[in-house]
Amino acid sequence: MSSVAKGTGAQAGLRRRNMALVMQALAAGEHVTRAAVAAEVGLTRATVSTLVDELLAAGLVEERGAQRPGTVGRPGTALALSERGPAGVGAEVGVDHLAACVVDLRGTVRCHATVPAANRSRPAAEVLAELAGLTAGVVAEAAERGLRPAGTAVAVPGLVGRDRGTVLRAPNLGWEDVDVAEHLGRAAVVENEANLGALAELWLGGHDRLADFVHVSAEIGIGAALVVEGRLFRGARGFAGELGHVPVHPDGPLCSCGAHGCLETYAGEEALLRAAGVGTGGGPALRAAAADGDPAALKALEEAGAALGIALSGAVNLLDPQAVVVGGPLAELAPWLLPGVRRELADRVTDRQWRPEDVVTSRLGRDGVLRGAAYSAVRTVLEDPVSWALQQEA
Amino acid sequence: MSSVAKGTGAQAGLRRRNMALVMQALAAGEHVTRAAVAAEVGLTRATVSTLVDELLAAGLVEERGAQRPGTVGRPGTALALSERGPAGVGAEVGVDHLAACVVDLRGTVRCHATVPAANRSRPAAEVLAELAGLTAGVVAEAAERGLRPAGTAVAVPGLVGRDRGTVLRAPNLGWEDVDVAEHLGRAAVVENEANLGALAELWLGGHDRLADFVHVSAEIGIGAALVVEGRLFRGARGFAGELGHVPVHPDGPLCSCGAHGCLETYAGEEALLRAAGVGTGGGPALRAAAADGDPAALKALEEAGAALGIALSGAVNLLDPQAVVVGGPLAELAPWLLPGVRRELADRVTDRQWRPEDVVTSRLGRDGVLRGAAYSAVRTVLEDPVSWALQQEA
Repeated sequence: MSSVAKGTGAQAGLRRRNMALVMQALAAGEHVTRAAVAAEVGLTRATVSTLVDELLAAGLVEERGAQRPGTVGRPGTALALSERGPAGVGAEVGVDHLAACVVDLRGTVRCHATVPAANRSRPAAEVLAELAGLTAGVVAEAAERGLRPAGTAVAVPGLVGRDRGTVLRAPNLGWEDVDVAEHLGRAAVVENEANLGALAELWLGGHDRLADFVHVSAEIGIGAALVVEGRLFRGARGFAGELGHVPVHPDGPLCSCGAHGCLETYAGEEALLRAAGVGTGGGPALRAAAADGDPAALKALEEAGAALGIALSGAVNLLDPQAVVVGGPLAELAPWLLPGVRRELADRVTDRQWRPEDVVTSRLGRDGVLRGAAYSAVRTVLEDPVSWALQQEA
Repeated sequence: MSSVAKGTGAQAGLRRRNMALVMQALAAGEHVTRAAVAAEVGLTRATVSTLVDELLAAGLVEERGAQRPGTVGRPGTALALSERGPAGVGAEVGVDHLAACVVDLRGTVRCHATVPAANRSRPAAEVLAELAGLTAGVVAEAAERGLRPAGTAVAVPGLVGRDRGTVLRAPNLGWEDVDVAEHLGRAAVVENEANLGALAELWLGGHDRLADFVHVSAEIGIGAALVVEGRLFRGARGFAGELGHVPVHPDGPLCSCGAHGCLETYAGEEALLRAAGVGTGGGPALRAAAADGDPAALKALEEAGAALGIALSGAVNLLDPQAVVVGGPLAELAPWLLPGVRRELADRVTDRQWRPEDVVTSRLGRDGVLRGAAYSAVRTVLEDPVSWALQQEA
């Protein structure tokens, strides 16, 4: 591996950057040739060939055989990121479940475990100890397939401190100042679940050139996150994306935050289930009732969709994103929510170019957050393969 | 001047960057010494001295005599940006006035002209011809003081095309697809007035380390702009900052945009004057009535402040800015608007660290937009003094 890390100063910096460009070009395409990478990143064929040889030697990239029948030799050989080597580990604390997974460099889930868990009613230390065990299990399984963790990210439904190791508060778990890294290893990074859902959409959502969007999901509260120019928009203090507390009807019902008429009082899970009259059955009961054409469920979803559309029209008028993505558990309710969302946006967005199809439903489903967590660790390798290689030597 | 531009390739790039760092350090401080600049930008004293000598020779910087009595020689000599040399030209098309000004490198207004003009009721070509004449006048006056235009920016109350030379539409002027650069010179850059007001606040507002804020102003409509990490936030299509069409009461009055209950229907000038019962007297009559304690005026301003606070609380929950700045003509109504704004924000912002004093009133007054336009041209020199020097040679 020392060849990947060689060179000093400005030259080493340039090699490092070029290595990352090649890795990211390979991550973006399937069965790419050296020539295609060179065209994509704007380097010479010779430079790309040298870099690819080093990435092959490091086990980060592999050859997949000839690109097309009839072409011979290396120029036409298709390349792909390795299915072995560095991997990303994701762990997730939900209100009623724990989950862990390992993804390879390509973003494919290779090992996955999930267990139901009543996390609201037990100590954080107990929750995190169980999560650590679950995570160790998938990491061991992945090791048997030749995958080595390059990093671990933990998704939590709460506000994360600047150290990225502590949960400052997670009201739905009853957590205040919980040191997550203490249980999952100092190298583990903690991140808000709504942020990871949005990043998963950016990295793995399968959208072409979508780099500016509002991502909205919901479990208990309304989770939202903003992606701007391909990066998470965190705000000055790290509190950006609080769509759930955007006022919809300023004189409306009292919200848990103390204000009146926040989006959460109309489209949060609790409000929605109550309005639909399926209180104890939860999300599955609501979906079943809606699918059966139950009038109360349909009315509740229609009204929640309209409230979501009103709050989102404010967000779109302020931020002018390319799209609004409905993800997470909310995506499963999209058939009933989206008509109201789209109608309000059509009525209220001042940008004449806004179209109903700019509201899209995520294809990642409930696994988006966990996959986003795991893939965030893979991203660190794609963005700086040389540092990863140096760590292997050390 | 050739010394400023010498060198090639990577070395020239580095010199260019260092030159800009020194210029910006001088722009930020008053009576700064070479030693203080070196400490600020992280270059050696020797490098800074060489760069400063070249900036002195180029006429961009001047010496102001000894920094403190009792110290002697160059090390203690205070430096300042020149009061002569490159200058920024600003021009402004208002609904009922035209204005032009020239600022020097320090941002000081050196020449200024403004005339009342009924721009709504006459052809764009006529408006722009008059503005070109007004601008030529201040430029000629500035030339007598040794100032040479480095660039011209034109502020308009409308949507500007990507070419930055065309106004796509300005409903309050009745303009559609007006080529501004045709009248004010191909080098003139056109910019939305709300954006320039926000940039003026960033550059000249006198706030320490304020780089993330929502700037809200109003004349006919509600103008707002977002500054994020010290840059204007334009959005994916350039429509960001439409605070005026954020829904406040979704079932409220019909807005000119076709939607119901937008902020503009509560806090736009027309709505405000109507509610206050001072229709024909305009802004001055409203301020006079409020100062006299007129109940209708006070009630109208209180309600407009509350509406502004509701819309801004959505913006703050989404964007998590450091502050909200009330600027432009709206700043003159701040004594009556701010109580309602602050109350709604206190009730509705979920970030526990948000404080009433995070809503601030601009000190720039009505001149902010024009000064921002002029200073935007100066910024191009501060950000790349070498390019300016090369242009002088050509």
